Amino acid sequence: MWQPSIAPGAVDRIACVGAGVIGGGWVAHFLARGHRVTAWDPAPDAEERLRRIVGAAWPALESLGLAEGASPDRLTVAATLEEAVADAEFVQESAPENLELKSDLLARIDAAAPIGVVVGSSTSGYRMTDMQAAAAHPERLVVGHPFNPPYLVPLVEVVGGERTDRAAVEWAAEFYTLTGKRVVLMDREVTGFIANRLQEALWREALHMIAEGEATVAQIETAVTAGPGLRWPFHGPSTTFHLAGGEGGIAHALDHFGVDGPWTRLDSPPLTDELRKALVTGAAEVTGGRPAAELIAERDRRLIAVLRALREAGA
Amino acid sequence: MWQPSIAPGAVDRIACVGAGVIGGGWVAHFLARGHRVTAWDPAPDAEERLRRIVGAAWPALESLGLAEGASPDRLTVAATLEEAVADAEFVQESAPENLELKSDLLARIDAAAPIGVVVGSSTSGYRMTDMQAAAAHPERLVVGHPFNPPYLVPLVEVVGGERTDRAAVEWAAEFYTLTGKRVVLMDREVTGFIANRLQEALWREALHMIAEGEATVAQIETAVTAGPGLRWPFHGPSTTFHLAGGEGGIAHALDHFGVDGPWTRLDSPPLTDELRKALVTGAAEVTGGRPAAELIAERDRRLIAVLRALREAGA
Repeated sequence: MWQPSIAPGAVDRIACVGAGVIGGGWVAHFLARGHRVTAWDPAPDAEERLRRIVGAAWPALESLGLAEGASPDRLTVAATLEEAVADAEFVQESAPENLELKSDLLARIDAAAPIGVVVGSSTSGYRMTDMQAAAAHPERLVVGHPFNPPYLVPLVEVVGGERTDRAAVEWAAEFYTLTGKRVVLMDREVTGFIANRLQEALWREALHMIAEGEATVAQIETAVTAGPGLRWPFHGPSTTFHLAGGEGGIAHALDHFGVDGPWTRLDSPPLTDELRKALVTGAAEVTGGRPAAELIAERDRRLIAVLRALREAGA
Repeated sequence: MWQPSIAPGAVDRIACVGAGVIGGGWVAHFLARGHRVTAWDPAPDAEERLRRIVGAAWPALESLGLAEGASPDRLTVAATLEEAVADAEFVQESAPENLELKSDLLARIDAAAPIGVVVGSSTSGYRMTDMQAAAAHPERLVVGHPFNPPYLVPLVEVVGGERTDRAAVEWAAEFYTLTGKRVVLMDREVTGFIANRLQEALWREALHMIAEGEATVAQIETAVTAGPGLRWPFHGPSTTFHLAGGEGGIAHALDHFGVDGPWTRLDSPPLTDELRKALVTGAAEVTGGRPAAELIAERDRRLIAVLRALREAGA
C-alpha cells in the first residue's frame, strides 16, 4: 500500500514539468500561494518564456491577494527533469497533449521523484490508466486537470487510474484544495472528464449551426455571453432547470418541458425513474432545498454583480 | 407591404400578454425603461402575482439604474386581452409554451392591435411560421425570445416567420436594442433558436453523464461554475478556442486539437474548408483581429472582475 511522505498542508517545494501556457499558469498559481517552485521544460527559451508568463500573471494574482512570502523569486528553472523533481514534495506535469509523450514523461518523473510524492497530470482528456502503464510506481500518479488560466480559474478535476492508490487521489484533492482550487473528485475515469465534455457538446452544436448556416460565429458568441453565459458562473444546468420549474422545481420542469424536445442535435437519454430521482435529489442537494423565491433573489443579486463587474471591466 | 405606425424610439405604451415568470419579467423590464405597460393574463390572481414579480425585481432594477420617470405605477392590468392591446404601440406575448395556445393568442392579439404595431412572441422554441398561421396580419408577428430573468439578462433572439415582413423584424430588433437589450437578429428560423440549442446540448451531455453514473449533479454544477462557466459571460466557444490556439489562434487550434475527439457524445460536423474558413474569419471578426497577448490580458481582467463580484455577492 502506497503512503504519502508528507501531509498536503506541509508541502513547500513543488516541481512543474512542462512550462507552456498551462504549466506556466500552474507555476504562477503555486508561486502566488507562497510555494517554492522548480520548473523544467525542454524548450531552449523555456526560462525566458516562463518568467514572462509569471510576470504577466503577477499583477492579477497580487490584486486577488498573495499568500505570505509569495514571490516570483521563489522560482528556479532546472537544467534537467530529474533535477527538477529530485527533492519535490509534489509534481505537476503539463506536457503537450500526446499520449506517448505523457506516458514517457510520467515514467521519467516517477523514476526520479521520491516514492511518497504525488504526481498530478494536467492532461485535458487522457485517462490515467492509459498514461500510467510505463511507470514503476503508478499508485501515486493522478490526473489534476486545470482550466485556462490555471492561476485564475479555480476548477481542478481530480481522478486516478486503475493502478492509482485511492490515498494518492485523496491526497491530491486535499492538496489542490489547500492551494485555493475548487476540486471535483471523480470516482470514474471518463475521457475528457466532466467540464470539457460539457463545453465540447456546446461547441459541437455551435459547429453544426455554423456549418449549416443557421448561425454565425458572432451570433453564437453574443447568444452565449449576453444570455445563459451570464448565469453559468454561479448556476450550472441543473440549477437553471430547477429554477425554470418555479416553486415546483426541477420535478415540475421535467414534467412540463421534458428532456427530449427538438432543441439540439444531441439526443437525450431516456428519462427513467432512476435518472429523474438523481436529478431531483441532486438539485435539492446543490440548492440546499431552499425555496424558489430565495434562490431567485440570490440569482438576481449574483447576476447584477456579474453585470456590474463586466461593465466596470469594459466588457 | 407592411409599414410600422411608429418609430421604435417613439414607443411609450407597451402591452404584455401573459404575466407569468417571463411575461412579468418583461413588464418589469419595460417599466424600468420608463414605459407605460398594460398587462393582461387570464389567471384570477394575475394582477397580484404580477405586482409581486415587479416589486421583487424593482430593487435590482433601481440598483442598475432606472430610466427617467420609470415607475411601477405606470403598470395597468386590463380586464381583457383586447383592452390591453387596443392602443398599444408594441405588444409582447408570453403565454405558456403550447403551439395551439400561442397561435390562437397571437391571432386574437393581431385582430385587436392596430395594424402598424409589431407583436413579439417570447416563445422559447417554436418557429413563427408555425405560430402565425391563424393571424390575419402575420407580417408584423416576430419572435423576440428573452432569457430568464428578462429584466436582467440582456439577450433577445429576434427572428421572423415566412410570412413576417422584414421591416417588422428590423423594427423589433431596433426597438429591443433601444430598451437596453442585446439583440441577435437571426436570418433563419431554427427550432430553439441559438442560445437554447447551445445550452440544451450541454444539458444533454450532463444528463447522459448522470444517467451513466459518470458524474453527479453536484459535480456537474461545480465543473461549470468553477470552470468554463466563469469565462462564458465574456467569451463564447469560438473565442475560447481561438485563445487555446495561442498566437496561432483558432486556425492553429483547429489543426492541433481538431473538432472530433472522443470528448462528448455529440458527433462533430466534418471540418470542411468552408467551415474552417467561417471559423477563422468569424474569430477574427469577434476579436477585432487583436493579438493573443492583448486578448489574454483582457480575459484575465474580466475573469478577475467576475471572481471578485461573485466573492462580494457571497457566491
